[in-house]
Amino acid sequence: MTMDNENDRPIDETSLSQQPTPAMTIPMDRPWERLGELADAGDSDALVEFVDSLSASDQALALSRLDGAHHKTVLTTMPAEDAAELLRHLSEIQAADLVESLSIPEAAAIVHEMPSDEQADLLGDLDEEQAAQILKALPKAEARAVRQLAAYSDDVAGGLLVREILRFDRSTTVAEVIAMLSENAEEFRDYDVQYAYLTDSDKRLVGVLPMRNLLFARRKDPVADIMIADPLSVRDTTPLDELIDFFDTHHFLGVPVVDAEGKLLGVVHRNAVDYEATRAAESDFLKSQGIIGGEELRTMPLWQRAKRRLSWLSINIVLNIGAAGVIAVYQDTLAKVIALAVFLPIISDMSGCSGNQAVAVSMRELSLGLVRPTEMMRVWLKEVSVGLINGAALGALVAIVAVIWDGNGYLGLVVGVALFFNTLVAVSIGGTVPLLLKRFGFDPAVASGPLLTTVTDMCGFFLVLGLATAMLDRLI
Amino acid sequence: MTMDNENDRPIDETSLSQQPTPAMTIPMDRPWERLGELADAGDSDALVEFVDSLSASDQALALSRLDGAHHKTVLTTMPAEDAAELLRHLSEIQAADLVESLSIPEAAAIVHEMPSDEQADLLGDLDEEQAAQILKALPKAEARAVRQLAAYSDDVAGGLLVREILRFDRSTTVAEVIAMLSENAEEFRDYDVQYAYLTDSDKRLVGVLPMRNLLFARRKDPVADIMIADPLSVRDTTPLDELIDFFDTHHFLGVPVVDAEGKLLGVVHRNAVDYEATRAAESDFLKSQGIIGGEELRTMPLWQRAKRRLSWLSINIVLNIGAAGVIAVYQDTLAKVIALAVFLPIISDMSGCSGNQAVAVSMRELSLGLVRPTEMMRVWLKEVSVGLINGAALGALVAIVAVIWDGNGYLGLVVGVALFFNTLVAVSIGGTVPLLLKRFGFDPAVASGPLLTTVTDMCGFFLVLGLATAMLDRLI
Repeated sequence: MTMDNENDRPIDETSLSQQPTPAMTIPMDRPWERLGELADAGDSDALVEFVDSLSASDQALALSRLDGAHHKTVLTTMPAEDAAELLRHLSEIQAADLVESLSIPEAAAIVHEMPSDEQADLLGDLDEEQAAQILKALPKAEARAVRQLAAYSDDVAGGLLVREILRFDRSTTVAEVIAMLSENAEEFRDYDVQYAYLTDSDKRLVGVLPMRNLLFARRKDPVADIMIADPLSVRDTTPLDELIDFFDTHHFLGVPVVDAEGKLLGVVHRNAVDYEATRAAESDFLKSQGIIGGEELRTMPLWQRAKRRLSWLSINIVLNIGAAGVIAVYQDTLAKVIALAVFLPIISDMSGCSGNQAVAVSMRELSLGLVRPTEMMRVWLKEVSVGLINGAALGALVAIVAVIWDGNGYLGLVVGVALFFNTLVAVSIGGTVPLLLKRFGFDPAVASGPLLTTVTDMCGFFLVLGLATAMLDRLI
Repeated sequence: MTMDNENDRPIDETSLSQQPTPAMTIPMDRPWERLGELADAGDSDALVEFVDSLSASDQALALSRLDGAHHKTVLTTMPAEDAAELLRHLSEIQAADLVESLSIPEAAAIVHEMPSDEQADLLGDLDEEQAAQILKALPKAEARAVRQLAAYSDDVAGGLLVREILRFDRSTTVAEVIAMLSENAEEFRDYDVQYAYLTDSDKRLVGVLPMRNLLFARRKDPVADIMIADPLSVRDTTPLDELIDFFDTHHFLGVPVVDAEGKLLGVVHRNAVDYEATRAAESDFLKSQGIIGGEELRTMPLWQRAKRRLSWLSINIVLNIGAAGVIAVYQDTLAKVIALAVFLPIISDMSGCSGNQAVAVSMRELSLGLVRPTEMMRVWLKEVSVGLINGAALGALVAIVAVIWDGNGYLGLVVGVALFFNTLVAVSIGGTVPLLLKRFGFDPAVASGPLLTTVTDMCGFFLVLGLATAMLDRLI
């Protein structure tokens, strides 16, 4: 099961005594071959045993190397519960990929074995048609719960909560709770058992009951006597960054989530928030590198991979051609001082590098809350100071190279001064654009790069060629 | 306190009833001004109260806007315990920055209030001289514990474990444990109370005791009767990626860590691993953008920021100049067909974009365990197929632009063919270089970018100008 809803689950004794631990497993050379054989053989027990013997990443690797037909065989040969367990060890994107190989009844049987929040996540990653069909195939109440969660996006409390929590009416007695716990020992293993949540007759949250308090309580007392009253809670609409903030400030394992009327909807666990935070950081990296519109795995269909990447590239090439237009304007100068052509790509690349550094620092400070999107001037001043130093250094270096190579001091002057000023431009734009984008609701990770390159290229070409035109007689 | 060692800490009733929750706080306009005033006023209680009223990110923001003198006042005006608490809400880099403003005794008093693993983290972020001094100022036993932890790097179990766990000898009785729990209710709040860890006479780990098992046990029995025997454990040397794998596969809150003799050293919590995973993803992003050798905050000294960034830029400019050298070789051709100069930066930038996409996908698949560093051929084939499609599309586009603009079909042919082939080169290098770097122990996030740009630039310039030279008579 995944980190985001079972983190408080009592240790599972079977897996506890299972040896060797995955951390100790020597990875098989080609685990997918054995996996394929076992699936074809249709031996459910042997298959489950083999899958359990693999570490999470070997499970992911093995499945990624099998075709859709085998995906289907593996998932349908295993008991639905184990298949659900397997899917939960995979990245969401790979899990969705596998489920797409299944028939609606097969998929529904497996989805049925998942906790509500993961059902919503998985269905959200499937294509709408299949997701709708699977929902139809689920028990009414279950489908309703999933629809409710699916109504929230992944980055608000409502989309991260688990409904599988222990709830009691405030009037329940300690004895009743303990009795219930021992009777349902098996079942409540799948629940968050560190705390129970107490509600009033209107299902409004009134208290939190740390299970351990039961150890020291009188059995006939109502649990309300040993609960923590007026507990902290968050609204279902609380966004991810506030949740991250909340768990940075408080050391709770989870926080109860209530709706507008204060009704208890479920609990968001710290691990669910950590998990989303990691995903956000990973996707910032992917987006900054031009992987937009969802993750790419090389096991995806070729056309999908090519199309996604191309959509990003085609925007960039248009911007690029626009920027290069500046060169065309100065063709005559360039024709007379051909040496300049050598330095145009250098100016363009180096300004890109300087600007990207500023982008990275701004995005980092935004995510740490160390700068506010409105503080453009502050950031600009901080960047310009760095730009002056680094621009001077880089400009001097490239000037020296030009002089040594071309023997004309004025060429050095032109390219050096151009790189100096363009570095200032690059860090200024790189530092402030992420704030600007964030402020107006765009994603800095996606848009900062192309904006930066385009402006710095245009500006860089203009500086080099404009200066050269002004000093043309000295350069020829 | 931080997520990585207190995640199983019982809910702290004081903060539970504290209102409003940070998630609800309306951020102050300039919290640092009030913070500065309160520090200058030296009113400890008011200061603590105000700090507690701020969300974690507002605390970080406010402190980042105060100078070193005020950092000192804030941290020394508060009781050491609250100062420690405050530091633990900050990013490690900011915490270290603050502590550097303190005298050794002041710093030691605060460090003394932190759990052992965080002491090690913090001291690791300070400059060696100060860290050594602070260690000297700590109680002998405490210093020894920190040194032990500091001996491990942050990315192995030994560097992530907490020593503050409940340990009992296997012969202890249920009654004795329960008595101990109720007597030390206060103290054990600071310990991991979901599980106790049982050792033999040689301090070797023999079992794990879920606290809830105490609810249903006979008081006179030894805890060994209700423990989970032969529990899973990891070695102190287990690396981070295996720990991530372990917690993906198992749904434990933590795993006991043993040394070579099987002696129990402590417990690594899931949250400590999640936290390191997030940091790894964030630092991949920073490194890929050219922020190397540690994070940068704009509150750091100007020279440090400029120097760090410049060290990265200077490597890149050298590589850049080398690549641009190819252009110099073909100056005569360029002089005759000046239009080519417009397309050189386009070819260079677009190849960079295509290559970066391949880099991102490779790094993602490596981190998900979906590809092994040895599988270069597999990755190359997957990339070439995408490169053929996107290269053709981009090549065609740029060719059309060239023809429309210049009217010479052969110019379009040259730049189109060049971009087509260079896209193939870019995705091939971008896809395989991360595997190669990883395989030989280098950091793909740092080195992939510069390697990629250099090779694709050289190759791109060579293709354009080489082809042009070959077809020179058609182009003039």
